[in-house]
This record gives sequence, structure tokens and C-alpha cells, in this order.
Amino acid sequence: MCGIVGYTGKQHATPFIIEGLKRLEYRGYDSAGLAVTTAATGSEPGEPDSAKARAPSAAKLHYLKRIGRVAELELAAAQQHSALPALAHCGIGHTRWATHGGVTEANAHPHLSNDHRIALVHNGVIENFHSIKTFLLGHGYTFASETDTEVLCNLIAYHYAKTPPQNAHNANDAQDARLLVAVRGALRHVEGTYGLVALCVDAPDELVAARKGSPLILGIGEGEHLVASDAAALISRTQKVVYLNDGELAHLSPTDLRLSSLNAAPLEPVVDQITWSIAQAELGDYAHFMQKEIFEQPDALENTMRGRFSEDGSTAQFGGLNLNADELRNVDRIILCACGTAWHACLVTKHLIERFARLPVEVDYASEFRYRNAPLSPTNTLCLVMSQSGETIDTLAALREAKRKGLRVLAVTNVVGSTIAREADGGIYQHAGPEIGVASTKAFTSQLLIGAMLALYLARLRTMSFTDGAAAVAALRAVPALIRKTLEQAPRIAEIATRYAQVTDMLFLGRLALFPIALEGALKLKEISYIHAEGYPAAELKHGPIALISPDCPSVFFVTRGELFSKVVSSMQEVKARGGPIIAICTEGLELPEKLADARIDIPDCHEAILPLVATIPVQLLSYEIAKQRGCDVDKPRNLAKSVTVE
Amino acid sequence: MCGIVGYTGKQHATPFIIEGLKRLEYRGYDSAGLAVTTAATGSEPGEPDSAKARAPSAAKLHYLKRIGRVAELELAAAQQHSALPALAHCGIGHTRWATHGGVTEANAHPHLSNDHRIALVHNGVIENFHSIKTFLLGHGYTFASETDTEVLCNLIAYHYAKTPPQNAHNANDAQDARLLVAVRGALRHVEGTYGLVALCVDAPDELVAARKGSPLILGIGEGEHLVASDAAALISRTQKVVYLNDGELAHLSPTDLRLSSLNAAPLEPVVDQITWSIAQAELGDYAHFMQKEIFEQPDALENTMRGRFSEDGSTAQFGGLNLNADELRNVDRIILCACGTAWHACLVTKHLIERFARLPVEVDYASEFRYRNAPLSPTNTLCLVMSQSGETIDTLAALREAKRKGLRVLAVTNVVGSTIAREADGGIYQHAGPEIGVASTKAFTSQLLIGAMLALYLARLRTMSFTDGAAAVAALRAVPALIRKTLEQAPRIAEIATRYAQVTDMLFLGRLALFPIALEGALKLKEISYIHAEGYPAAELKHGPIALISPDCPSVFFVTRGELFSKVVSSMQEVKARGGPIIAICTEGLELPEKLADARIDIPDCHEAILPLVATIPVQLLSYEIAKQRGCDVDKPRNLAKSVTVE
Repeated sequence: MCGIVGYTGKQHATPFIIEGLKRLEYRGYDSAGLAVTTAATGSEPGEPDSAKARAPSAAKLHYLKRIGRVAELELAAAQQHSALPALAHCGIGHTRWATHGGVTEANAHPHLSNDHRIALVHNGVIENFHSIKTFLLGHGYTFASETDTEVLCNLIAYHYAKTPPQNAHNANDAQDARLLVAVRGALRHVEGTYGLVALCVDAPDELVAARKGSPLILGIGEGEHLVASDAAALISRTQKVVYLNDGELAHLSPTDLRLSSLNAAPLEPVVDQITWSIAQAELGDYAHFMQKEIFEQPDALENTMRGRFSEDGSTAQFGGLNLNADELRNVDRIILCACGTAWHACLVTKHLIERFARLPVEVDYASEFRYRNAPLSPTNTLCLVMSQSGETIDTLAALREAKRKGLRVLAVTNVVGSTIAREADGGIYQHAGPEIGVASTKAFTSQLLIGAMLALYLARLRTMSFTDGAAAVAALRAVPALIRKTLEQAPRIAEIATRYAQVTDMLFLGRLALFPIALEGALKLKEISYIHAEGYPAAELKHGPIALISPDCPSVFFVTRGELFSKVVSSMQEVKARGGPIIAICTEGLELPEKLADARIDIPDCHEAILPLVATIPVQLLSYEIAKQRGCDVDKPRNLAKSVTVE
Repeated sequence: MCGIVGYTGKQHATPFIIEGLKRLEYRGYDSAGLAVTTAATGSEPGEPDSAKARAPSAAKLHYLKRIGRVAELELAAAQQHSALPALAHCGIGHTRWATHGGVTEANAHPHLSNDHRIALVHNGVIENFHSIKTFLLGHGYTFASETDTEVLCNLIAYHYAKTPPQNAHNANDAQDARLLVAVRGALRHVEGTYGLVALCVDAPDELVAARKGSPLILGIGEGEHLVASDAAALISRTQKVVYLNDGELAHLSPTDLRLSSLNAAPLEPVVDQITWSIAQAELGDYAHFMQKEIFEQPDALENTMRGRFSEDGSTAQFGGLNLNADELRNVDRIILCACGTAWHACLVTKHLIERFARLPVEVDYASEFRYRNAPLSPTNTLCLVMSQSGETIDTLAALREAKRKGLRVLAVTNVVGSTIAREADGGIYQHAGPEIGVASTKAFTSQLLIGAMLALYLARLRTMSFTDGAAAVAALRAVPALIRKTLEQAPRIAEIATRYAQVTDMLFLGRLALFPIALEGALKLKEISYIHAEGYPAAELKHGPIALISPDCPSVFFVTRGELFSKVVSSMQEVKARGGPIIAICTEGLELPEKLADARIDIPDCHEAILPLVATIPVQLLSYEIAKQRGCDVDKPRNLAKSVTVE
């Protein structure tokens, strides 16, 4: 949550910062702000420009904040009387998702030091900010906001004042630049998490960034350096990046990038390449990112499975597990941890691993696993975590707890180089491309695909036959085509959505591996349409939730061919007998009792390994269409933001 | 669901049947009916009465059915022009909860044979009724309803017609009475489940009962025999009962009770004693059974724990586990299965067993466990099921599946002699007294208590110290007093309920062992007030459900002393920042940030083993008060019935 962007170089900083904030808006959008510096004329290095003709002036720091979307900030910046200078070559910006403190301009970032010489943007939570504030109040500092960030900014100012002036700016010897020393000094007293970028008027083309627990990525451009909390803000400018690690600081100028530790030890930057393209992070012909990402799924899943089947076509294979076949055969229990949508993917994965590989699997909420001290056997228990962003703080905490207890931890993530990917002992990248829609779609189905492939792989190391393995591989390879076919139902689903768009409650009901898809369908609808939707295993309905059934509360049933068909039909009849409307997501060709379903969406008949994946498509489309018809802001739902990096 | 009652004796049958149906009404109440016989005068044995003076007449069968509550049936029966005779000494009755087929008089029980000579009441589902119906249609039978029961009744009539008349009634030699032979003949062709009682005009003081999968209890009175699907209907007349087993038939007359098998082998009845008293099944001074049962909890839990602590006061002990200490020490994994509210009790029990005994525990929906073919290791895995009624069909099916796979199965049930109690390898009775309210309260807390005691017992067989054990025992013994204290909050909770009674949505949020209590609080509210309430682990809120937060959707937070206090407060702040009202269920004396909670309910500080139990009381009271203030029928919520005996 919250987005950070920073720039130093020869180009105009303000348009780049605003564009970057827009790309990060899916991370939070209740308020936004930016700060830029203008260099002192006369002292400014570089080629002459029209400013040179003016009388010499001191360097200045300018800032602007607005409540609401980044568009409000952009509008304000464009106004004639804006506080921003027409030209600035260095600056920082922030888009916020409030966790503590209300949504006000005072609480928006950047925050400024009392003397307005230092500006700071910050993600994370400073846990000991109360005691730091008391200390600073004792030294005469005052505070305009309730935020921990303003306290931190003034703590930096306090250390800056203490730092000897010989540490002042020298572009080609910035290792111990005064601002860097001050930030480092302040962070030594801080408990909590941060991803931060600071700017100081005394060195108007320099940025200092630091990270602990909240991601930052440095971008290396042509005569410019960039920083952002998320690669999406950088890819329009560069694909060459450095992932900042916890405990690292960066000092950036247009021509220089230096890393150091909190102990002032210099560190060597590792340059990585982002594989996403700018087109992947743009809307194209779609109305919303969610819609784009739903329709991208055939291609995204093709990428997820590429190169991951064995030559004999009977099993899946993964490059980065860092566990050999014998080690995997010794595993006798698996713990899966995740949050939200990824937790639903874990439930499906559990079902498939237990079904195919006959290994007991437990699924835990990452936030609960972290604290509940589950009984674990480190020698034989494998832990696997899932997080699209690879930055979900609860999931990261679960990963660390599992490692602390001696478990091997694998990670399924979509973001290469993310914290979870780097801290895990091994892992599987989803390769689904950037997901911008707050409501996860293609990342979820690619997690389901990896779950099914992993179940197959583990099963083939144990008791599954060549024939069954080959059948599963064939089924998995067919996924993109089956999804393409299911997506053809979109117009029909839009029509069904029209009939139910105004309800306030809905139930989603499925059994076995489709129960998690019922949960996911309900969550999707809840997230973007604010309809109170809830998922249940179909047979649990009669043990209580059936009390909710009325003509105003439709039920979405997953009803498929197989052993449980008649049982699910019985549950549907119970709903029908109480006047509840029914939307059936149903295997094509399957005959339902007459008049039982009020609406029907067909899905192709398919292998059980991929059924949950295929059955997901209709509920994605249904929630998307309903939200759209209710006039909801699909890509920016209220109260929510992508990638939850606070606990 | 559905209730059955039958009577044969010297007293008036109709008032007893109606009283019995009222006591069974919590099992279902969408329609009700009864059938009675009058004997042929002149041919009737026994002492002379005024009827003797009248002209001789043939025996007759009379019936009456009504849609709605039993009170409607009672009213109709009392009307002057009622089809019922003033005097009848034998009859059957039924109160229905529709699963298949709408709520109509035609679909209500009893069902009659085409010739109106046989009447039948039936719980359960005849799965092959379509083919039987086709067979009977071919033999000229016709059907007035859509029910499987009418088909079964006519199949009995078909076999009755084929049975030689020498099997006609002879009161003292009824072993092969004609109706018994006919019922037995019919049942040999039936697939499905049944608890049934049949009545035939040719033998007007006899009843034939049979059971497979749906409970029936025979009552032995003074010169009378009774039958019912539930002990509650019998205890006003007798405490001497015979539990009918699956595959058994009973033939009843005023003076005779005989059991036989489907193969006509005679069986010896085992007479049991019901320990419930009639007062326990009556309202007394309370407005509703739910209220009565909430306030009964201190006493009910006293009964649950009575005699179940070791002499040295450091552990719990149970009489009927049928597993010795060494066998329990060899257990390395536990599977818990249940439905609805009992499933929540299993979630808490899992937490406590894992915490204290360090044994991995998995909780499964009984309905899902039955079909998902979980990987199990019969030698070391213990299965435990929970069901208040001991008749929940999904739970029974899970028990049978676990036994089939070789697992030892223990059962926690409240009803002595219930099917689940009898089929389990061992078990623990809750001894909470009869629970009449459809929304479970005292049965739930007594399951929590047993869960905590079992966790303690298993822990003391392993690594828990004497001191920790003694502390847990002391905490458990204090439960009734702590609950009494918490119940004192009732007036305050009623006042809070007034403020929120008209909302349509609510969230319940707790962590670790209080997450299941959040689920239970939400289910309770849903069941009796039809408010769409949902439970979540508090930290999951930000991963999606927070989208629901608005001033119209209050959140109930469990916030207690300990390691997670500050994390729960953070979740509360996220809700507050989005304008959501907060009801805090909070450890007494714990300081919350100012203005964070809009309403606060205190609970006593207590040992973690009993915290979930104590924290349950406020949500019981809150849901009760809200439902009452909304004018809902608390004891007979829409769409629901006690004890779900269909799949």
C-alpha cells in the first residue's frame, strides 16, 4: 500500500513523478503529494539554459499535496498559481492509503522538516514514533500532522544539524554526503518498517533512499536515476534496476548510485533486468485493468507453464525449487501460508496435492501462522507461501517464522526479485506479467496453475502412474484454450449481471476444490462491488447460513459432473424451496432439473486438476460486470489497495 | 429435521400427539399433521365404555394436516367440524421441514395409501422412489403428492395386500402381524434413509416403526407405548426408553413391544433411562429457549465437567474414551469433523490441542471429509467428531468413512444413546441437558469446554508440567463463575443491541482461538436475525473484506490482553479510518485508544484455555437481543431446523 517515486536527472522531474504516481495509484489513492528542488542559479552545474540569464538565487524546495486521486494533484500542479516551479530536475512523490490517521492534506506525504529544508516520503510504520516525538518536542521541534513520517523527517533534520558541514555535497564523492549521514543516524534510532526517500535543499540534485520491510527499487536511466516502491513506475524509463535490500541505503545523483549499510559499509549494487514491458502496464483497448487482466489469462497462463513440462510429457518440472527429488520424497507434510486471494489458491493446492500426491497439507492464514506457534517437524515438513507481489508483509512474516523454526520454505510469487522471492529457500515465479487491478485475477489463476503443476510433480515422485501423469499434463496444456472458450461467455454473463446488479447480498456455494473458488468469487464481488457476498461449502448451507436465503439474496452454485452432482442439486433444491434465486455455473451438457436455475453459465468439461481454474473465469466476469453496472470504480475499489505491506 | 410422534394406549392419543409435536417443533415447522384410528365398536377388546352402547361400527382412520406451525393443527383439531373423533387411543403425527417439494397440505405427513387404510409418517429420503413409483403406477396406484413418503406408503399397501390374512391382528401374538410383514416387505426394496411409523385401520391399536439412518426412540409407559424421533416428545410420559437401531423394526400395541430385524429375526429390546427431566424441556420464566439456554450455561457447564478432573487436580479425565494412555501417546495427528456451530468448536479445540499438546490437528467440514478421500494414516491418526444431537447425518457419514479407513473415532455428543454416540469407538457426553433453541448456545460452550479439557488431558500425557496442568484445571473449574459474571452484562448488551438492531451487515473479527468465536458470533446473528454477518481473522480484513466497511456495517472486535493487542488495535484503526462503527469485546481493565470503540463489552481476564468460552457469551447475548429487537422468532428462525438429518 502507498506508492513512492523519486527522480534525479536532466529531464523534468514533475511530469515523471506524476506519471509514476499514476502507475502506482493501484497501491493507494486517498491522497497524493510531491516535492521538488530548484538549484541555486549560478552554482548549478551542467549546460547553460535560460535560467542562467536570471539573477543568481538560492536553491529552493517546493511541495504540493492534495486529497484524493493523483489526478487532483496533477490538476493542481498544472494551475498557473501552483507553488511548483516550471522546471525542476529532482523530486519525490507519494500516493497514500491511510492506515493510521485520517485522510487530510496535513497527513499526506511528503512531510517536511520544521525548517522546510528536508522533505520525506515513507511507507511502513515507525513503531517507536511516540518516544522519538517526545524527544524532539524536548528539543523544540513542532508537528503539523499526526503522522510517524513527520516525526521521522524531523529526526533526520536533527541528525542533519549535528552532521559536520564537511559532509556537504560533492557530486563525485558523495559516499558520505551529509543527508546520507543524517538519514543513517536517524534510522539507527528507529524501530519499525520503512521504505523512504529523502530530499534536501542543500544538495538539490541528490536523493537518499533506505529500506527495511517495505520495498524500493532503484532505476538506472540515461543520465538519470530513479527510485520507486514498485517496478511499474519505472518501466517507462528503464528496465535496468537495483533491488534495495533490507538494511541498505542508497545515495542517488544524476550520475551516481551508491549503496551502503546502516553501519556505513559500502555495498556493491547488483543490476537486474525487468522483463515486463510498458505495454503490459497500460490499459490498451480495455475499460479497466481488471478486464484486461481477465482477458489476458490465456496468454499469462501460457507464460506460467512455458518450459515447465518434462520431455516425456508425464510431469511438471520447476527450475528453482532447490530441493532434489529425494528431498521432496522425504517430505511428509506441507504447510501453505498466504493471505486473501492467494489463501484461496492455497486451499485449492491443498486439495490437489492431497488428492494426487497423498501428502497431508495444512493451509494457514499467514497472519495467524506467524503467531500461533503451530506444532512443526522441521525435518519432514515443507512450507510454501504464495504472494503475487512478493511483498505482502503478513506472508513475509510467516516465511521468516517458518525459516526460524527450521522449515524449508518455497515461495510462489509473480514479482521477480521481490522480498519474498529473495528470502525463500526456493520458489516458482508465476510469470503472469504485472497485475495492476486491485482485485487479483490472472495472478490468482496462475497460482492455481502452479498449484496443480506442483501437485502433479509431487505425485509423480510418489505413486502416480505415467498414464495419469500424461493425462494431467495434457489437461494442463489445454488450459489456455479452455479459458479462451470460457471467456466467450462474457456477453451472456454481462446480461445475467444486469439482472442481479442491484442486490445487496449473495452466496457462493461449491464443494471440494470448488469451495475455495466459491470463497474467491465472493471475495471478488465484495472487493469491487461492495455487495456482501459469502462463500460456503454447499452442504454447510443447511447448518445455518440458509437463514439468509430470500428472493433478494441470489446464490451462485458450482455444479459439475461427478459424484457430488446429486448432492449439490439437493442443496440447490433447499435454496429454491425457500425462494432464493439461483445462478448455476455448470458443466456444459449437464442436465439440471427443470426450473432449478434462474440463470446458467456453462463451463467446459475438464480434468479435475484444472476444474477450479476454469470455474474461476465466470465468477471473475460476473463480479466485474456487476461492479461495472453498479457504477463502481473497478480498478480502484474503496478502502482497498494492492499489495498489503503493513501488518 | 422433521419430527415424528406416535401413541398407542388407554389415554387420548390426539392431545399427546399434538403436545409431542410442539416439543419437536424445533426440528421443523412448515407444516404438520396427524392420523388416528377409532376401533370398531362391538369387536373392541377391553373394558366397556360409553361407545359400547352405540350401534356396532367398523374401525376408521381419520387424519388432519395443516400448513404452518403445530398451533394451526391444534386449532383445526379443536374445531367442532374437525375430521378427528373426540376419542382415539392410537395415532401418529409429524411436523415437517421441507427439503424436497414445496410446503403444501398435499406434501405434509401423514401420507395415506390409495385405499386410505394405511397412514405413514417418515423422516429421511427414499432415493429410489422414482423407480418404485413407476412400478406402482404400473399396478394402478395413483399419487396425490410429489413426495417419496406417499410412494413408500403405497408400497407398504401393495405388500399388505399380498400378505396372507392369517397374519391379521392378534394382540398377544403380534410377532408377525400383517402390517409388520408388509412394512418389512416394502423396506426390502427401499434404498435410502428412514425413520417411520405406520398405522393401519385393520389393527387400530397397533403401530409399526422402522429405522435406517433417521432416529426413533420407543417409550414404555403405563399400559401404553410411545414412539418419537426425539426424547423431548416422550419425557412428559416416561423416562423408560428403547433406542431403535438401524435395520430394526418395532411392533407396538398398548401392552406389547417387540423388535425384529429386516430378516424377521426377533430381537431383544434394551431398555434405557432418559436422564433429562421435563422441566429442562420447558421455558419456565424465560421468553425464549435460546435465552433460557444462554442463562443455563453456568449449570450446564458444571454438569459437563462434573467428575472429570483427576484427584491430584492437574488434569482432566474421561470415562468413555476406550483408549488408554499409551494408545493416546501413539497418536501423532488428529482429525476433527463437524458441521455448523460444532465445526467452530472444533476450530477452537484444534488451537488448544496444538498449543498445549503440540499435536498437529486438522479440522474438516464433515460433509467434505466424507467425499474428499483425505490422506490418512490409520495407525497414528485419531478422528474426533462433534454433534450436539448425535444425529447430524453429515457428521455420522464422516464418522463411518473414518472408521472404514481404519481410524479410531471418538464422538462428543449431547444426546445419550444417539446414533453417533453409539457408532463411535468411544466418546465424551456433553451432559448439557436438552437444547431446544435452534441456535445452539449451551451445547456450543460445552463442546468448547470438552475441547479444552481434552487438550489438557492430551498435553498432560505428553509434555505439560504438573504446575501448568493445575493452573489449567483451576481455570476450567472457574468457568461457571466467570460465565455468571459475564452474563451480568446482559442489560448493557441489550442497550448496545438497540443501537445496531437495524443494520443489514456486520463483521466479527478475532485472532487465534477467538477467530472461531468471530465465526460463531456471525453465524448466530445470521441464523436468528437474518443480518448478513461474517467472521474473519482480524488481520485478513485488509486483504479484501475491508471493502465492506461503511457507517452502516459495524464490526465486532475481540480485543484481549496479550501479544496481539496492538495488532488488533491496528485493525480497528483501519476500520475507524473508513468510518466503520466498532463494538469491542474487551478484557476488563484493558485501555483502548480514545474514541476507538463506539461500544464496549467487558469480559473477565482469564486463562487462554477458557478465553474462547468466556468470549462467546457476549456474542450470544448480542445476537439474541438484536434478533428480539428486530421482532424475529428467535426459537424458530426462518429456513432452519434443529439437528440436520438429511445430507
